[in-house]
Amino acid sequence: MRQGVHLRSTVSGLEYPFDRIVEFADNGESLEVAIPGIERARPRSGSRAWDRFAEFMPFDSTHPGLSLGEGNTPMVEAGGALEKYSGVEGLLLKNETMNPTWSFKDRGSIACTAMAAELGERFAATVSTGNMGQSMAAYGARAGMRVIVFLPDFAPREKLLAMAVHGATVLRVGGADYADMKRRALGLAAEFGLRVVSGNGPVRVEGYKMEAFELFEQLGGEVPDFIVVPTSACGHIRGIFKGYRELRAAGLVSRLPRMVVAQAAANSPLASAIKKGSTKVIPFRNFTTVAEALASGDPPGGEEILVKAREQGWLAEDVSEEAILEAQSMLAKSGFFVEPGSATAFGALRSLRASGAVPKGARVVVVLTGSGLKDVEVTARHRADIVDCGIDGMGPAVESILRKEAVL
Amino acid sequence: MRQGVHLRSTVSGLEYPFDRIVEFADNGESLEVAIPGIERARPRSGSRAWDRFAEFMPFDSTHPGLSLGEGNTPMVEAGGALEKYSGVEGLLLKNETMNPTWSFKDRGSIACTAMAAELGERFAATVSTGNMGQSMAAYGARAGMRVIVFLPDFAPREKLLAMAVHGATVLRVGGADYADMKRRALGLAAEFGLRVVSGNGPVRVEGYKMEAFELFEQLGGEVPDFIVVPTSACGHIRGIFKGYRELRAAGLVSRLPRMVVAQAAANSPLASAIKKGSTKVIPFRNFTTVAEALASGDPPGGEEILVKAREQGWLAEDVSEEAILEAQSMLAKSGFFVEPGSATAFGALRSLRASGAVPKGARVVVVLTGSGLKDVEVTARHRADIVDCGIDGMGPAVESILRKEAVL
Repeated sequence: MRQGVHLRSTVSGLEYPFDRIVEFADNGESLEVAIPGIERARPRSGSRAWDRFAEFMPFDSTHPGLSLGEGNTPMVEAGGALEKYSGVEGLLLKNETMNPTWSFKDRGSIACTAMAAELGERFAATVSTGNMGQSMAAYGARAGMRVIVFLPDFAPREKLLAMAVHGATVLRVGGADYADMKRRALGLAAEFGLRVVSGNGPVRVEGYKMEAFELFEQLGGEVPDFIVVPTSACGHIRGIFKGYRELRAAGLVSRLPRMVVAQAAANSPLASAIKKGSTKVIPFRNFTTVAEALASGDPPGGEEILVKAREQGWLAEDVSEEAILEAQSMLAKSGFFVEPGSATAFGALRSLRASGAVPKGARVVVVLTGSGLKDVEVTARHRADIVDCGIDGMGPAVESILRKEAVL
Repeated sequence: MRQGVHLRSTVSGLEYPFDRIVEFADNGESLEVAIPGIERARPRSGSRAWDRFAEFMPFDSTHPGLSLGEGNTPMVEAGGALEKYSGVEGLLLKNETMNPTWSFKDRGSIACTAMAAELGERFAATVSTGNMGQSMAAYGARAGMRVIVFLPDFAPREKLLAMAVHGATVLRVGGADYADMKRRALGLAAEFGLRVVSGNGPVRVEGYKMEAFELFEQLGGEVPDFIVVPTSACGHIRGIFKGYRELRAAGLVSRLPRMVVAQAAANSPLASAIKKGSTKVIPFRNFTTVAEALASGDPPGGEEILVKAREQGWLAEDVSEEAILEAQSMLAKSGFFVEPGSATAFGALRSLRASGAVPKGARVVVVLTGSGLKDVEVTARHRADIVDCGIDGMGPAVESILRKEAVL
């Protein structure tokens, strides 16, 4: 890693070495990477965002050999139907489903394998309900590392298969609450000297910064008023925000976006706390939600988010199951098929705009975090237009559709 | 469309207007778009490849409002394990699974909706076993068009759901051979004046050209010796080749790559014909293969591919079911999770390199066409490393893994 890089706890500023094996401070706070000289960092030229923003990163190299082509995702206009539904004109979508394993997690995973490469680590473990395990399995395979994934037994079979295909060892943990299982897994780090990568680890967050850097480029230096992020383990939202903090430290932008924490109402440990003005995460247990990717009911280090929300004027919203599915359907009917966890962000925006918390005329980016292919079965709950016929019925079926639409 | 643009049949050069409703010539040949003045076309600057190569396209506009952010996919080094397995040093992968609906089809779909927008068409139909239907459904939704997908009833439920979620009408056709069903669907075009978009249509092919243009940029003007493409309906492979033909016509490259037709041995209407030197497609019927995405057993207009293979020194290989699954597993163990149809290309390359048809030292690009998430269930056939335990078994399980690897 680069000279002087170290870890700092995000609330009280405790300092630790970069290679600390435990991902959180001794008092449980989340950690972030402190990069000396960030105020002098400047973008360079290069085809990968990692090359262009190398001076903002804690690593010695941009590690092209560890890359699977992550990032460089499109920012597209949501279009008329989604503008109308959300009430936000000029709404922008940052489509993270177009990553190598089809979720934003890949940006964090290459940061983790880059660190492992620089520290000479050959093993990594992670705790996952799906996306994280798939991503770490793929990037571990790319890096020639052995990856262990702790997966709750309620995770769907296809998520298990998508990790196992990359050669990861999947430890399927039965009968445990996810938060308990995660806490146990994180405890194994100190016990065995094993790097246990969580969704809120400081190195992973370095990878997520790259989204801010790409948005900075894609918006020609304009800072959005709001960036809406489906939030579970917290690493993603704070990573994007850290990217903007560092752009400001370097004098490249003059203000910060306000982040919007989107969660399912069925599991809203952060959004509920923010809305109530609580300084403590409100734990959720034994919930079920269609937003399976947002599984953290009691995210370690989550207090950082509550502090930042208060200090920085972040917003939060929790979204009902019905509204999540409706948001998923609306996005799909404009061409964007995301998993329910991702759709939560769009549902949250609609509600915050309706209440006026997001004012008219605000520039808003919604991050689409994971592909709809991650959980296709849930879409069986949407209304679908399916007609059965035989080969001789094809003509009549088409004729009937065209007549109904007054084309024939 | 641009002045003078028209359709030309690919074997005998019959000419037709651009807005011809039937996608093939009267004699069954495939059609391609003739663009007058292509020798004067030059790349421009722009963030989308469609902007940069607008002068090579038949359209009036680059249609940013119809884009879902397709293309701009990474070209990455395959890495040591895949180089060793394939026998090809410096092997490159063009990863088309990182498109908005996670397959290369999206490049063709925006070309189709761009044409519909310029011609004022509000309906499109397509025939699909999965990827094409999903892609047209998404792009139709983006464009505000009504999309009808003819889907064989053997298509897996998740593929049906992934089309229906975008609001397409799915006509599920029971008890028919796929080739028969496709022929019937194509016949509906003339009958009802309905645009029936197939995988080998001339407008779709214009979208696939963009892959050649991106490779041209990504390789700094170097032309690969071989580009390996899993081939079913034929539009994709001829689209990439047409892109290179046009780059040569414009004087930007001095030679053409040799294309490699990869098919499953269980359904190899083109690869078998090329290997036997036949001038006719060899139809396959009632086959089953893990490479579900390569469903065309008798591709309309396929003779063009046989002609080009003979004239241009293209290669072809058919790959056994076992070798396809092995190739899929090898790719995944280097971080790339593709569907079996895509893995076919990698299996074909291994075999052609072993036989010497692809010589040592050749520069080769393999196109990864579709995400492994399109058919996760098939990976249950791979060996997987899955261990069941309870929360108290997590520590002992990790300890046993680390001991076996001599880390503890």
